[in-house]
Amino acid sequence: MRENRYDDEIFFQKYSQMARSRQGLAGAGEWPTLQAVLPDFAGKAVLDLGCGYGWHARYAAERGAASVTACDISEKMLAVAREKNAHSAVTYRREAFEDADYPAETFDVVLCSLMLHYLADYGDFVEKVHRWLKPGGILVYTVEHPVFTAYGSQDWYYGPDGEILHFPVDNYYIEGQRDAVFLGEHVVKYHRTLTTYLEGLLARGFTLLHVREPQPPEELVRTVPGMADELRRPMMLIVSARKDR
Amino acid sequence: MRENRYDDEIFFQKYSQMARSRQGLAGAGEWPTLQAVLPDFAGKAVLDLGCGYGWHARYAAERGAASVTACDISEKMLAVAREKNAHSAVTYRREAFEDADYPAETFDVVLCSLMLHYLADYGDFVEKVHRWLKPGGILVYTVEHPVFTAYGSQDWYYGPDGEILHFPVDNYYIEGQRDAVFLGEHVVKYHRTLTTYLEGLLARGFTLLHVREPQPPEELVRTVPGMADELRRPMMLIVSARKDR
Repeated sequence: MRENRYDDEIFFQKYSQMARSRQGLAGAGEWPTLQAVLPDFAGKAVLDLGCGYGWHARYAAERGAASVTACDISEKMLAVAREKNAHSAVTYRREAFEDADYPAETFDVVLCSLMLHYLADYGDFVEKVHRWLKPGGILVYTVEHPVFTAYGSQDWYYGPDGEILHFPVDNYYIEGQRDAVFLGEHVVKYHRTLTTYLEGLLARGFTLLHVREPQPPEELVRTVPGMADELRRPMMLIVSARKDR
Repeated sequence: MRENRYDDEIFFQKYSQMARSRQGLAGAGEWPTLQAVLPDFAGKAVLDLGCGYGWHARYAAERGAASVTACDISEKMLAVAREKNAHSAVTYRREAFEDADYPAETFDVVLCSLMLHYLADYGDFVEKVHRWLKPGGILVYTVEHPVFTAYGSQDWYYGPDGEILHFPVDNYYIEGQRDAVFLGEHVVKYHRTLTTYLEGLLARGFTLLHVREPQPPEELVRTVPGMADELRRPMMLIVSARKDR
């Protein structure tokens, strides 16, 4: 299944209202943590999988990437990307990851921001990225944290007065499809354990460079409603890895 | 603070009734996962930190370790270890980790089973182990999972009829002391994020070899009461790493 909720008109309208959509990188709570683990882009051939509005693609291009191939399944996403984040080094392509194919050892860097939890087959992802990367090439991805995806609803557990009590975890070792609610809309996501994410890379010959759970920066905690609750449970995982074997 | 609950008479009595105490490695749900990531012990100098009953120390000795230095803070633990798991290659020592010191590059392998969540200073642990390991030496530890330690109570969240609803996560990014209940007794433990555990090793020059969340083997799920619930949330994390820098 190729999940393409972002071409749904209502869903896309809601997504476009999020801080990360309106403000770009500065509105994304994970950006400072992600930025700190990104490799040097100068002269690099970059692939951006699930590029969305293209913020990361343009960032790589502005840091000197020789080329950025930026793919997304959603036509609506790409329309905004071409408008907001056009750059002479960036090529935007409409393509589902499941259909993508590139020659072996094409890219120095593969970026993948918040796409993996929409993907049914993580093993296929690891295989393809490993093949497409040059030796020594770098993969950096962000994904919803297994703590966040395990239960399924992706919502807090509330008390009788509607106050947040805590975040629920259940069925952690039962991987696979979850019916989540995101922006008030039904979305299919996939839960995987931390073990699956990291051991999948290690077994395929990647060396782990970083495994970080981003905390929102203090300024966002102060200024964005609800952001302080992001200190109560991890929502994202950032992984960077190098193809060494 | 040197946490030494195991020399409390009641606590130790209760501990001695656990499957892992009565049956040793076969009674420990994480053992198959841990065993799979252990290095070759033949001819190796091994340090076992928080050795408890000494099951792992004897295992390493029986697999050909040249020497196993096995330390624990608890006299009661060591008394059982000397009785149940004596081996000519194993030296049991009473020593709190905080007081331990060894010459640089003394050991090929450092084991540390379920001790780190009693330790206030993880950075100190990483520093010391890095110093004591020979170049290329291996650290393997098991620790209570950040999902398990975050909330503090280490208990499920129950419904009105006493049924398990889910496992609660809260205060994930707020590291430090937690007042937990283990075996019905009050115990001080320390919560750290996954980021702290893994980045602490990476920053100090370790290469991550494995990061695994053990699931109990099917046989234990079938035969041990309550073990099936262990599939609902991760309780432990197993990390192995090599000193490469």
